[in-house]
Amino acid sequence: MDIKQYMTEVGEKARAASHALACADTGAKNAALMHIADAMMAAQTVLIAENARDLEQGRQNGLDAAFLDRLELTAERIAGMAEGLREIVALPDPVGEITDLSYRPTGIQVGKMRVPLGVIGIIYESRPNVTADAAALCLKSGNAAILRGGSEARHSNQAIATVIHAGLEKAGLPRDAVQVVTTTDRAAVGELITMPQYVDVIVPRGGKGLIARISADAKVPVIKHLDGVCHVFIDAEADLDKAVAIAFNAKCHRYGVCNAMETLLVDEPVAAEVLPRLATEYAKENVELRGCPRTRDILAGIHAASDEDWDEEYLAPVLSIRVVDGLDEAIAHIHRHSSEHTEAIVTENYTRARRFLAEVDSASVMVNASTRFADGFEYGLGAEIGISTDKIHVRGPVGLEGLTSQKYIVLGDGHIRS
Amino acid sequence: MDIKQYMTEVGEKARAASHALACADTGAKNAALMHIADAMMAAQTVLIAENARDLEQGRQNGLDAAFLDRLELTAERIAGMAEGLREIVALPDPVGEITDLSYRPTGIQVGKMRVPLGVIGIIYESRPNVTADAAALCLKSGNAAILRGGSEARHSNQAIATVIHAGLEKAGLPRDAVQVVTTTDRAAVGELITMPQYVDVIVPRGGKGLIARISADAKVPVIKHLDGVCHVFIDAEADLDKAVAIAFNAKCHRYGVCNAMETLLVDEPVAAEVLPRLATEYAKENVELRGCPRTRDILAGIHAASDEDWDEEYLAPVLSIRVVDGLDEAIAHIHRHSSEHTEAIVTENYTRARRFLAEVDSASVMVNASTRFADGFEYGLGAEIGISTDKIHVRGPVGLEGLTSQKYIVLGDGHIRS
Repeated sequence: MDIKQYMTEVGEKARAASHALACADTGAKNAALMHIADAMMAAQTVLIAENARDLEQGRQNGLDAAFLDRLELTAERIAGMAEGLREIVALPDPVGEITDLSYRPTGIQVGKMRVPLGVIGIIYESRPNVTADAAALCLKSGNAAILRGGSEARHSNQAIATVIHAGLEKAGLPRDAVQVVTTTDRAAVGELITMPQYVDVIVPRGGKGLIARISADAKVPVIKHLDGVCHVFIDAEADLDKAVAIAFNAKCHRYGVCNAMETLLVDEPVAAEVLPRLATEYAKENVELRGCPRTRDILAGIHAASDEDWDEEYLAPVLSIRVVDGLDEAIAHIHRHSSEHTEAIVTENYTRARRFLAEVDSASVMVNASTRFADGFEYGLGAEIGISTDKIHVRGPVGLEGLTSQKYIVLGDGHIRS
Repeated sequence: MDIKQYMTEVGEKARAASHALACADTGAKNAALMHIADAMMAAQTVLIAENARDLEQGRQNGLDAAFLDRLELTAERIAGMAEGLREIVALPDPVGEITDLSYRPTGIQVGKMRVPLGVIGIIYESRPNVTADAAALCLKSGNAAILRGGSEARHSNQAIATVIHAGLEKAGLPRDAVQVVTTTDRAAVGELITMPQYVDVIVPRGGKGLIARISADAKVPVIKHLDGVCHVFIDAEADLDKAVAIAFNAKCHRYGVCNAMETLLVDEPVAAEVLPRLATEYAKENVELRGCPRTRDILAGIHAASDEDWDEEYLAPVLSIRVVDGLDEAIAHIHRHSSEHTEAIVTENYTRARRFLAEVDSASVMVNASTRFADGFEYGLGAEIGISTDKIHVRGPVGLEGLTSQKYIVLGDGHIRS
């Protein structure tokens, strides 16, 4: 197979479909989503059988249990995918919204209309449910999608693609609106991320290695999520009950997630009081603490934090702790070490809360709330295709609106420029 | 000089300054702009003397008259730069604006705060006034700027930089908020566009060749403006007086600009009536017409348009004309040949106007108005740093808001995630 030629054809078909999809009305897009959900439930047996082929291959290839678990489609997970599709039906359609339409001194009216980006390339790893989720978000936002999942899930993904195509056709939408790349050749990814004439944006979903590699090589804009090195700062005027609750929740609610706290900063005046209380809570969950020298003066016996600890995304029951002298030192630490994902301050002090919100440059900045809230569902986006740690285009959780752009519209009555 | 080391230092200083600038209040930024304007008027003699060195060098190097004209600083142009700075003072500060702040079911409040992008790299050619304009737009939007002008203007640009630094310091802002690269080594551009750790976005201003080269090599997002192949479609139900006025204005108001019409599409039923009227007008301005066969049946004696004509940005008194069968064919032509800059329909038909607005995928889409209106000042942005033909981040004329992003803010009262 000539990969370049194959991907060019995929790109051409996606571009053509994107024009039809951009003009599809909300009803047609919602009908397609409902048909896909129905077809998915009806195809349960086929999906499980195809998935079994991937699982068998995976076992032969020695994939570990966690990988196989992510790969597996059960009746419950298939029902979950179908339910996810129906939830996207309920979200408002962002396309076509006109805002800021107002008259200019020349008499023309100028406004903005929200439009799809065009063609979105999604590159992901082993979870087959991403095929359905990503297709649905692209479809609802009027974008054609080119999906490239991990080769380990190829039979599952093709089976899901068949279901999606059936739903699209039943709703009268072009089947090329969602294409699942059939080749498992890695060169296909190389093509996908270097054809700006056919692809408007790439959304990689997966491990840091995958995302870094794609970002380095892409000639197409990438909406990317790199590290989540999130901080909580307990200010001298924090309510310490809130501080303990938030710092515990931010670390222990879930470990392997990007919005978990990885470093705790504590203002010196309250360190001696709050750190022992927190250490007691963390000990119950067997969280390993690594402290700066002043932290270790208070919490005797914990590990020393190395220079590397301050930049580490543990994704594990490990926490680095530093005692700082006030807000300025906390913000300086965050500017130096944060991945600009999510940071929180715990304080009752109005001025410092206001300063933290203004001065900390991260995708989500919080006062008296757990970093775990940094999430598309918690923010009311309804669904998220990912979280952006970039500043360009979209920042933080990315929902349907993040998959759109705005064009200017101008309404005149024969107006010419003088 | 070690270019890599030099640019790294420039980048580090810019990043440090960007944190201070992001928190600078509007008053300080406006004071700096006023001080720079005053310093610019006071330094008129120095600026003209330094500019004379560039002009002399340019003459020795055989630069053509048009180039030397763009390079020249006169008393009037210096006053114009100062006036431009004062106009930016009058624009609202986009930074810190909080929108969409609302309660979520969990009790947290979630909203968005507008924030600077951080560090903006501007790469431009010979016009020294860009140094002042770009610095002012970056400053007002809270961004640190790294400016890299053409080597032909190096003495002029350094003199302007001195003026800018004096103004920044007088207002108590870091002088590194605006840095003008001192080396004329081309390798500096290569470094600037490949240091994402220090530079958040690149805005190239100049010829197509420069922009294409930068986009191809950049590892930093680029807000770019490529071709302006703009179309006007005269629909069968157009008011032909408006059609003639708009098609004439779109072509003849100025030739060398990106928002000039390059191709006219005319619906068949009105072609025989409107084309001769337009030809008479264009003849007065010596506009060369190049037509499709059906156009040439009506306008005998004009040149035949070649396949290449439909993709050509003439930037000259040349126009290609095609007769089409209705809106669908017009939109198909636009999708195939447009650079997605600006397109206009002339029609009195409500449904076709509505369809054109929805279906044409360009940065500006107009009804009954000249494409020449696609401009930051005409749209009320106050000033523009460029026009984006991309869809990601910002589309169309780019003003202060295009140089910003939004972060999420979350306000709680000890809220944790359950």
